[in-house]
Amino acid sequence: MKDDYGQLISSLAQVNKKKIVLLVLDGLGDTDNEGKGTALQIARTPNMDKLAQKAALGLAHPVFPGITPGSGPGHLGLFGYDPVMYQIGRGVLSALGLEFKLRKEDVAARLNFCTLDGDGKVEDRRAGRISSDKNHELIEKIKKNLQPGDVEVFLETESEHRALLVLRGEDLDDRVGDTDPQQTGKKPMDPARAPYDSSKTAKIARDIFNQVQEILKDESPANMILSRGFAQLPDWPSFHERYKLNPVAVAGYPMYRGIARLLGMEVFSEPKAPNDIISETVNAIEKHDFVFAHFKDPDKTGENGDIQEKIKAIEAMDEALPPLIEQQPDVLIITGDHSTPAPLAAHSWHPVPVLFKAPGLRGPFLDSFDEIAALKGELSIISSKEIMTLAMAHAGKMAKFGA
Amino acid sequence: MKDDYGQLISSLAQVNKKKIVLLVLDGLGDTDNEGKGTALQIARTPNMDKLAQKAALGLAHPVFPGITPGSGPGHLGLFGYDPVMYQIGRGVLSALGLEFKLRKEDVAARLNFCTLDGDGKVEDRRAGRISSDKNHELIEKIKKNLQPGDVEVFLETESEHRALLVLRGEDLDDRVGDTDPQQTGKKPMDPARAPYDSSKTAKIARDIFNQVQEILKDESPANMILSRGFAQLPDWPSFHERYKLNPVAVAGYPMYRGIARLLGMEVFSEPKAPNDIISETVNAIEKHDFVFAHFKDPDKTGENGDIQEKIKAIEAMDEALPPLIEQQPDVLIITGDHSTPAPLAAHSWHPVPVLFKAPGLRGPFLDSFDEIAALKGELSIISSKEIMTLAMAHAGKMAKFGA
Repeated sequence: MKDDYGQLISSLAQVNKKKIVLLVLDGLGDTDNEGKGTALQIARTPNMDKLAQKAALGLAHPVFPGITPGSGPGHLGLFGYDPVMYQIGRGVLSALGLEFKLRKEDVAARLNFCTLDGDGKVEDRRAGRISSDKNHELIEKIKKNLQPGDVEVFLETESEHRALLVLRGEDLDDRVGDTDPQQTGKKPMDPARAPYDSSKTAKIARDIFNQVQEILKDESPANMILSRGFAQLPDWPSFHERYKLNPVAVAGYPMYRGIARLLGMEVFSEPKAPNDIISETVNAIEKHDFVFAHFKDPDKTGENGDIQEKIKAIEAMDEALPPLIEQQPDVLIITGDHSTPAPLAAHSWHPVPVLFKAPGLRGPFLDSFDEIAALKGELSIISSKEIMTLAMAHAGKMAKFGA
Repeated sequence: MKDDYGQLISSLAQVNKKKIVLLVLDGLGDTDNEGKGTALQIARTPNMDKLAQKAALGLAHPVFPGITPGSGPGHLGLFGYDPVMYQIGRGVLSALGLEFKLRKEDVAARLNFCTLDGDGKVEDRRAGRISSDKNHELIEKIKKNLQPGDVEVFLETESEHRALLVLRGEDLDDRVGDTDPQQTGKKPMDPARAPYDSSKTAKIARDIFNQVQEILKDESPANMILSRGFAQLPDWPSFHERYKLNPVAVAGYPMYRGIARLLGMEVFSEPKAPNDIISETVNAIEKHDFVFAHFKDPDKTGENGDIQEKIKAIEAMDEALPPLIEQQPDVLIITGDHSTPAPLAAHSWHPVPVLFKAPGLRGPFLDSFDEIAALKGELSIISSKEIMTLAMAHAGKMAKFGA
């Protein structure tokens, strides 16, 4: 992987006392709601609108026009890591979501409980979406009976049929085949098939899955597990290496704390409500020059297709903003990691509105912060991965490139 | 060639029943005509204007700002293949334009008849632009007298001094030097010079050109041929591999059918008039989930520098649109492969207006479809190669990237 822009940015990054706050309203972007506009257009947001009048607005593509990102790529983009270049393996993402403290020597995989028929073929890839309680009970049964050999094996329930497997030991690697055949009527695949047959880890996985099949053979409907996405912690430049910043994350949900930790951000407290997020941010900025603050509700309500609740979530955050605004961080960015339009009830590819309050702006200065106003803003349409470099520049933290 | 974005898009593409129509008005973009606006601004286009009021508008750069594309790069961009990464060799492009059915083992080159002086030096690289009839007569004479050895040789008249050469046989490759010295006063170059001297094909070409010089020695002014751009069919992912679509082309001219075939699109019928193009498109969409429809006249009239005729061509297509609009394809895109401004009487680099009618839009919704309105549109200024991914996304055919 050759990240020319990343290296250039690192080489130009400078330390000073200026403070940068990145406030992420997860899933903020929206589409038109039956001719009434987007959630951000409809919501009463006097504080953000007032900020907009002295800020640069724009829209940011999280990955690429037409590509809908998950939380991982969405946040990596905001942190200035090209999400196509920096891809998190599924096993690692599962570990992050459970706040499992992965070590460098670990290998993680995502598991699904499944149902095998009498011939050992997959009948249901999700075992009828068993309850999380049943999942937990089965995980305990496996842990009790499994003979792990010379590796440590960690198993954790995620939710419903989903679980996490982590192997810890020496000389492990991620060259392990997925056993999930991705369709019913086929047997689980051998994790140590070619080209994985030279991997010690793949042979360990094979042995574990054989034992699990024996342990679960009398269970129903979840009588086996399937694995996907064996992965190790990626060896990426940390946020500090990239920007020479001393970053901290204020995030109430495990997945976002996990992504922040992956980049070496400090993580403390777990606020979920707007007032708590803002007061933690105001505290955090005292000792750090970069704060990533995460607010989940616009995404949750958008995924539920509930435009009224999405509007309320945005309004609640707007109402909570004054202490942060009064603190006057040098650069304040309010945006989302992706759009979650209520009409689509899902993440989407639409570019996300960005409010960028900083010294050194040009205009035009607009009256309100929303997707339609943002289209006319100083930032125009950018890529999410460009936002951090802009923040660094406006904070006076970027040296000149070339003489 | 490493096409990370292409691979990402392929990995996310999903099949569903939604239909996408891409209607290309060749050379659609224009510049200002003596203060009266662009062809699309001046033309009366009530149907497109009505579509615009519920569509996303924007402008698309076919390749890169300032780069004027030919038909090949222009269309590859629209199909989502980066035209800088996916370059069609000149020989293959000539074959496509003549609808010559190139096979994988063939090597194609573009030929020009030329005039050599008494010393065997090039006196006129185009032999005074001989007529197509004379060209045909000379091609027949060469075919009659040539001893091709152990390859099959195909020769076809293009127009004026231009012709196509195709070699068919075993173990052929495209490591053949151009013989055209690109200036007068020099002898044709040896196609088997270093570094091409190890290529069997280059030696065959040398032998053929030596024979042709002998066969044409008493002709005037066209007493020799020069060759350029030996090339083989590229090994590219098909449109189906890229998007999991079942595509069809509705195109009246060989070049466009050829480019469509190159990507594995089905091709049938050859409509040239707007009504025929639209009715064929309406038929085609019944059995296919993607239709590429091509209308040549805005480019032809633009190249003639005839603004009145260009306006008429656009108006004729607008008038023909209703049956397609009534059919309500899930995604309807109306755009061009490049601009052909009447004031320039040539292809140009100006970004091309795009009308994008689909579910899941955001606004602003504008009153008319033209270059000036498009600048304020939801799509803003994009790259042509992004259009297909957007179409896939709006049709619900793209899975989420990452969790």
